[in-house]
Amino acid sequence: MGSEPLLEQLIEALRCLPGVGPKSAQRMALHLLERDREGGRQLSATLVAAMERIGRCKLCRNLTEQELCRICANEQRDASLLCVVESPGDVLAIEQATGYRGRYFVLMGRLSPLDGIGPADLGLDELAQRLESAPPREIIIATNPTVEGEATAYYLQRMAQKQGVTVSRIAHGVPLGGELEFTDQSTIAHAFSSRQVV
Amino acid sequence: MGSEPLLEQLIEALRCLPGVGPKSAQRMALHLLERDREGGRQLSATLVAAMERIGRCKLCRNLTEQELCRICANEQRDASLLCVVESPGDVLAIEQATGYRGRYFVLMGRLSPLDGIGPADLGLDELAQRLESAPPREIIIATNPTVEGEATAYYLQRMAQKQGVTVSRIAHGVPLGGELEFTDQSTIAHAFSSRQVV
Repeated sequence: MGSEPLLEQLIEALRCLPGVGPKSAQRMALHLLERDREGGRQLSATLVAAMERIGRCKLCRNLTEQELCRICANEQRDASLLCVVESPGDVLAIEQATGYRGRYFVLMGRLSPLDGIGPADLGLDELAQRLESAPPREIIIATNPTVEGEATAYYLQRMAQKQGVTVSRIAHGVPLGGELEFTDQSTIAHAFSSRQVV
Repeated sequence: MGSEPLLEQLIEALRCLPGVGPKSAQRMALHLLERDREGGRQLSATLVAAMERIGRCKLCRNLTEQELCRICANEQRDASLLCVVESPGDVLAIEQATGYRGRYFVLMGRLSPLDGIGPADLGLDELAQRLESAPPREIIIATNPTVEGEATAYYLQRMAQKQGVTVSRIAHGVPLGGELEFTDQSTIAHAFSSRQVV
């Protein structure tokens, strides 16, 4: 286009959003300018506030603007259950899908020695201390079923077992509503070997 | 999710962007917070600047932060050609696709009596004055081939012809790369009746 510098800057800035290419960014910029300036102003104010004020929960490492996140601060949540996940998005997914009433620990990543991500980067030292000082009854490992996620799960499992804490892992297999015919081979193989007597 | 208020506000605010539903908004918010806070700050600053400073070109009504947009301010552009379009996005599309070196007039809408949008809302009074005081050689009508776009085109055509200005319309028909078999009936009918002797 090579025309209006500020409009071009806005289109470029919108591209920092995931999944937004040049065409969508242009559409977003024009939509805000033509139809929703108030929404754009509101978004700007909320964005800067969120970027400045949202930090990490000092107990579970999840995103929060407080010292403790809502879940850690909630006395009603069962402290004897601790679910370990990779990211804040995983917490949201579990909260939305299940009736889980325990606590979380958010790694904010996964063990990946090739990328230089070790236990300390995932707060595993703090987690080890927590397991020692106030051991939960059960640790539920809900890392993703990828190579790094599995390595992380194995590390967590050994850490918990050393403290005598019960370790469980969420089930992996054919998703509900999925069709066997269109499920990938490794998922089917895993579902087969993890079959349960009913 | 019912947890962090500021995070929820951010997810909600992102939904003012077109094509962004709750899931994408959540993904965007978490991406910015976990991986690109600088991008989020930049986006916030650019957004508020754009919302406050971008107005309308006083000649062609297109979006610009100056009094005159880059195209109207450019002496090199041929003032004897005037292309009338519905929106700023249409100007960008034509600029990107063609070698057009004339000027534009941006209606910022289309005639739609049912929605209470009349000629005055589209700046057609100013356009009529301009056609009288400094008539271009040719007016190229590039409104969209919808019912309202067609009505607008007809209005523009009569207005221009009253001043003795040549009126042309961009061609509508089967898109290049499109297949006749999968083109809708009204496009095929239009393409047929608009066939040209070669």
